Amino acid sequence: MAKRTRVGIVGFTGYSGAELLRILKTHPGAEPVLLEHRPVADSELPVGEDTPRIPFEMEALAGEGVEIVFLATSLDVAMEATPKVLEAGMRCIDLSAAFRLRTTANYQRWYKVEHSCPELLGEAAYGLPEFFREVVKISRLVANPGCYPTAVNLALRPLIVEAVLDRSAGVICDAKSGVSGAGRSPSLKTHFCEVTENLSAYSVLNHRHVPEILHTTDVDEYELSFTAQLLPIHRGILETIYVRAAEQIEWKELRATYDKYYADEPFVRIYPEGRLPDIRSVRDTNFCDIGFQVHPESRRVVIVAAIDNLVKGAAGQAVQNMNLLLGCGETDGLLDEAPQ
Amino acid sequence: MAKRTRVGIVGFTGYSGAELLRILKTHPGAEPVLLEHRPVADSELPVGEDTPRIPFEMEALAGEGVEIVFLATSLDVAMEATPKVLEAGMRCIDLSAAFRLRTTANYQRWYKVEHSCPELLGEAAYGLPEFFREVVKISRLVANPGCYPTAVNLALRPLIVEAVLDRSAGVICDAKSGVSGAGRSPSLKTHFCEVTENLSAYSVLNHRHVPEILHTTDVDEYELSFTAQLLPIHRGILETIYVRAAEQIEWKELRATYDKYYADEPFVRIYPEGRLPDIRSVRDTNFCDIGFQVHPESRRVVIVAAIDNLVKGAAGQAVQNMNLLLGCGETDGLLDEAPQ
Amino acid sequence: MAKRTRVGIVGFTGYSGAELLRILKTHPGAEPVLLEHRPVADSELPVGEDTPRIPFEMEALAGEGVEIVFLATSLDVAMEATPKVLEAGMRCIDLSAAFRLRTTANYQRWYKVEHSCPELLGEAAYGLPEFFREVVKISRLVANPGCYPTAVNLALRPLIVEAVLDRSAGVICDAKSGVSGAGRSPSLKTHFCEVTENLSAYSVLNHRHVPEILHTTDVDEYELSFTAQLLPIHRGILETIYVRAAEQIEWKELRATYDKYYADEPFVRIYPEGRLPDIRSVRDTNFCDIGFQVHPESRRVVIVAAIDNLVKGAAGQAVQNMNLLLGCGETDGLLDEAPQ
Amino acid sequence: MAKRTRVGIVGFTGYSGAELLRILKTHPGAEPVLLEHRPVADSELPVGEDTPRIPFEMEALAGEGVEIVFLATSLDVAMEATPKVLEAGMRCIDLSAAFRLRTTANYQRWYKVEHSCPELLGEAAYGLPEFFREVVKISRLVANPGCYPTAVNLALRPLIVEAVLDRSAGVICDAKSGVSGAGRSPSLKTHFCEVTENLSAYSVLNHRHVPEILHTTDVDEYELSFTAQLLPIHRGILETIYVRAAEQIEWKELRATYDKYYADEPFVRIYPEGRLPDIRSVRDTNFCDIGFQVHPESRRVVIVAAIDNLVKGAAGQAVQNMNLLLGCGETDGLLDEAPQ
Repeated sequence: MAKRTRVGIVGFTGYSGAELLRILKTHPGAEPVLLEHRPVADSELPVGEDTPRIPFEMEALAGEGVEIVFLATSLDVAMEATPKVLEAGMRCIDLSAAFRLRTTANYQRWYKVEHSCPELLGEAAYGLPEFFREVVKISRLVANPGCYPTAVNLALRPLIVEAVLDRSAGVICDAKSGVSGAGRSPSLKTHFCEVTENLSAYSVLNHRHVPEILHTTDVDEYELSFTAQLLPIHRGILETIYVRAAEQIEWKELRATYDKYYADEPFVRIYPEGRLPDIRSVRDTNFCDIGFQVHPESRRVVIVAAIDNLVKGAAGQAVQNMNLLLGCGETDGLLDEAPQ
Repeated sequence: MAKRTRVGIVGFTGYSGAELLRILKTHPGAEPVLLEHRPVADSELPVGEDTPRIPFEMEALAGEGVEIVFLATSLDVAMEATPKVLEAGMRCIDLSAAFRLRTTANYQRWYKVEHSCPELLGEAAYGLPEFFREVVKISRLVANPGCYPTAVNLALRPLIVEAVLDRSAGVICDAKSGVSGAGRSPSLKTHFCEVTENLSAYSVLNHRHVPEILHTTDVDEYELSFTAQLLPIHRGILETIYVRAAEQIEWKELRATYDKYYADEPFVRIYPEGRLPDIRSVRDTNFCDIGFQVHPESRRVVIVAAIDNLVKGAAGQAVQNMNLLLGCGETDGLLDEAPQ
Repeated sequence: MAKRTRVGIVGFTGYSGAELLRILKTHPGAEPVLLEHRPVADSELPVGEDTPRIPFEMEALAGEGVEIVFLATSLDVAMEATPKVLEAGMRCIDLSAAFRLRTTANYQRWYKVEHSCPELLGEAAYGLPEFFREVVKISRLVANPGCYPTAVNLALRPLIVEAVLDRSAGVICDAKSGVSGAGRSPSLKTHFCEVTENLSAYSVLNHRHVPEILHTTDVDEYELSFTAQLLPIHRGILETIYVRAAEQIEWKELRATYDKYYADEPFVRIYPEGRLPDIRSVRDTNFCDIGFQVHPESRRVVIVAAIDNLVKGAAGQAVQNMNLLLGCGETDGLLDEAPQ
Repeated sequence: MAKRTRVGIVGFTGYSGAELLRILKTHPGAEPVLLEHRPVADSELPVGEDTPRIPFEMEALAGEGVEIVFLATSLDVAMEATPKVLEAGMRCIDLSAAFRLRTTANYQRWYKVEHSCPELLGEAAYGLPEFFREVVKISRLVANPGCYPTAVNLALRPLIVEAVLDRSAGVICDAKSGVSGAGRSPSLKTHFCEVTENLSAYSVLNHRHVPEILHTTDVDEYELSFTAQLLPIHRGILETIYVRAAEQIEWKELRATYDKYYADEPFVRIYPEGRLPDIRSVRDTNFCDIGFQVHPESRRVVIVAAIDNLVKGAAGQAVQNMNLLLGCGETDGLLDEAPQ
């Protein structure tokens, strides 16, 4: 096997960070190191976990030959750490929201924070490879997309770019996510008894992922109705998107529009007529599955998109971006299919 | 205790029928009898179940003094049995779809069946008491509403009737239901392993409940986009409804519209600003909980409605209708709150 | 309706306390009042919850005419509050473990606390009505049993008392509980993602309920192997108990032993040969269901007992004890059957 | 990459067969082919599934160069097919119970069938590589172990073989399994609504896996109490095993006994003192995780063992056996760790 690049993970006790570790352990081109942002006891890790751990300090990293750092942390930690990582000559893939938005005003409005390194907002590449892969390849800072926006974007961008939609009818995105999307910190909201046998809507018309969706899909804020809902499942997102075509359109025509963008994409699967994706189909995989139903006369189109929020919505997409940075195969380490 | 009316349940081994039995067992004005449409072994029933069982034959019922028959059966069985029940002088509350639609054409189109007693379609009262209670009271045949339509109707009718909506923007109803809505007959679709940790959409733009929704809400087929989705939960429905107001509207104005219809309704609870119902809040209850969010400038309105599909969406509403037929308190037997 | 006794609930935001409130709301002989041990915001309560709330202070209670106080709190709060409640002339039903054990040494060993009012340990009645109902009736302090011990006791006591068992073979109790047994305070242990699709054992050979089981069943510590396991469900306990009969015994003989104790008990249901209880059968009910299998030649006996940990294992049993204190019907408010 | 051996899967629409396919797709030494025992429509398979499919007929297989056939079918199909597969010169790994037992009497007693090819019972190698790897390597027919027996065996055999146990106290195995263990054929038992929020015991003292456990662990039928319970999860088994040591024993001594057998086993992980495995730790993996707690004075030992029933309990172990047959690395294709 060729020499593998050392890559470091900050936030490896969280769900995204742990999933990242799992993927990287069998990756042919990367060798993971765990970077301790705070001291982590052995008892917090799975029995037998023996990946090397070092403190997340720039001097330590330099000595270890780490070339890329994944930040699977809160936005605050990411804003503080990123400039140091870049200054130390390493590249950075940030899984938080710290570099996804383009203006400090958006951070003030949606996250109620003053951005501490606004000079990097313009530089960060938005890491959705299906649309921005060439920019990612040459970046030293990749803003890994949010989970909900990843699915919205992949489902909608071809139709927006090709002007297939009647925008006056609005874009309705009814999104449902597993609980791991809320992170591993315990709260009443993630308590088993509050979630099981339940479904609840939250952040209706007011979700933090809205500005990211707006920016990357080029939809206007007044057009988009986005609702997030908490499913009683561990992982996975299903988004049901309601739009209206600008003119009468057949299923096959819409299919052709998707194929134009995704025919050669390894991680986007367009479903045949009459079938729609569900969450199980993408569990533990880096796929985004997309299906749709059309009612030609009324121009109504319903699109169903599914991803695993921890893979294509977080760790898997981060590895896909890493593959682009390393120049190895974009699908390396990412081709597993969903288990039964 | 006053004399209780004997009422019979056909289909008591199904989920709706069994739930009906549970509610009726502690009802102050009714005394349930189980009517065997097919021979049922003791081992099919819970240990200790000792409600009287008699064959579902008209002569037997007459001798037993049964006055009302609940049909918690398939549409086929209901179409065959209803005329006999009525002819024998009993009243009938049908929980199937057999008498919910108004035309034989709709049965041909949506259920692929020739209706066997079309003469009863005009007579059946649509058993949504909040809107049709006076008609129900004097009927001998009540068509108990479908689960999805019950929630759509209660959430939308006030806005439709009061012409609050811009109908050109369409009515989007993204509905999610627990598995008991699919009945108790085993199928791959209801297999635990196919449902758990999953969410799947089905019958998109093509669900059998559409004609019932259209008829009762007076929405046009081309306006309504209805999607049903199967949640990994036992019971409960959450519907997220997206509409646009005809003109700028504040939350309080919409609240006033709802209050006009529901201020005195015992089973409809409108949520205060900033709170939205979830499925747990209505579990095992006959309540329909409704909350909403408004964006005045863009006129977007998102409504969230929750019911228990086996109670307000089936057995509970059937008992509410029975209460109307019997002339006892409409809330008798139905005021339990959701368990923890 | 006759005058209802006012009863107060401390800890009404927890699962047991909220369940207690639900049961008491429709109870014919009691009228609940919520006692605020800390200030509780409206947003912490279900929409529409309008039960009177007053501070948990002795002067306030006196003025309100509260006669019985339920403590659904931590052990610490219960130890502090109980003497005050009793001194103020009210009776107390404590759902914590504060008065279940008999010696301060046991509190030191199992709970690592110094008991603050040991003088009450001897006075408290152990509130398992099936065995101690006469004592409960005349008590002013009832120690409501733990959830696991309730099921163990009801399953085993008849066999222990009647000397049916070969004690040298030990008593193995493999217990599984829903997550609500761990309370409503969020922790990683109760995080949805850690519980769903999982089963984990905890406190093996070392669970805090062991001394309570030992004391009330009269089994020796060296004989009992008790394992608790966390099920991915909200509520309910199933215990599988393995014992050996002292001599060859037939199913019918064991049944007769159980019948001797439970034939007239309203909340204990013994299953017929060939059937075993599951958790669904007791959900939301105050029943303890018991079934068993016997292998006569080898004298092996397997007993399966099921309860709802929040009802017979907490709030329901507390109401059963309250009924005894009030002298009303022991089953008042407690006869609901399991929902579908 | 070296030439890969063609291997065929019969029963690929079932859970074990589909899992087998998933593992084999990325296996370095094998190339899977789907063998249709009955015609399978595209719509029964995941979208995009393009593994070659051929009829399960001996002539067809010969032409395709298939060398090993996996039977992930019912016992009946396996008994009929195995002789033909062997006769055609291929080797066979049977995941059904058709060749796990040693006597036709056991098939009559436990499966109520007359075995159709008893001459193969003596030849079949019992495919538990940790104990029988050398025999497997040279076999043409491997009986892949049952899921429950795999975990019991790995947890108990070292203690049985080393005579650590006091057998007179019996061996209690309280086993819990996810629903996929019951197969993919729908039944009321596997209906989502019957399983969720439930736990039920079945086949108490009478489970079909008992003779397999008895034979391979060398425990006597009268000593073993085995209870199977259905968990509301998709996949995974946890077994809690209660035994008594023959004499006082410390945790470290028991650990040494396990290490003697498993120190070099790649798929058995013994947990450190104070930690116990749960089902999540082995999900989607081929590991058997084992932890235990000891009470030296009373000689009570509680062992907790976890496997994924579809991997180490079925498809993964089958691939492990295939690796032995092929002479490639025993862990090839099987080293994935559990996802978050």
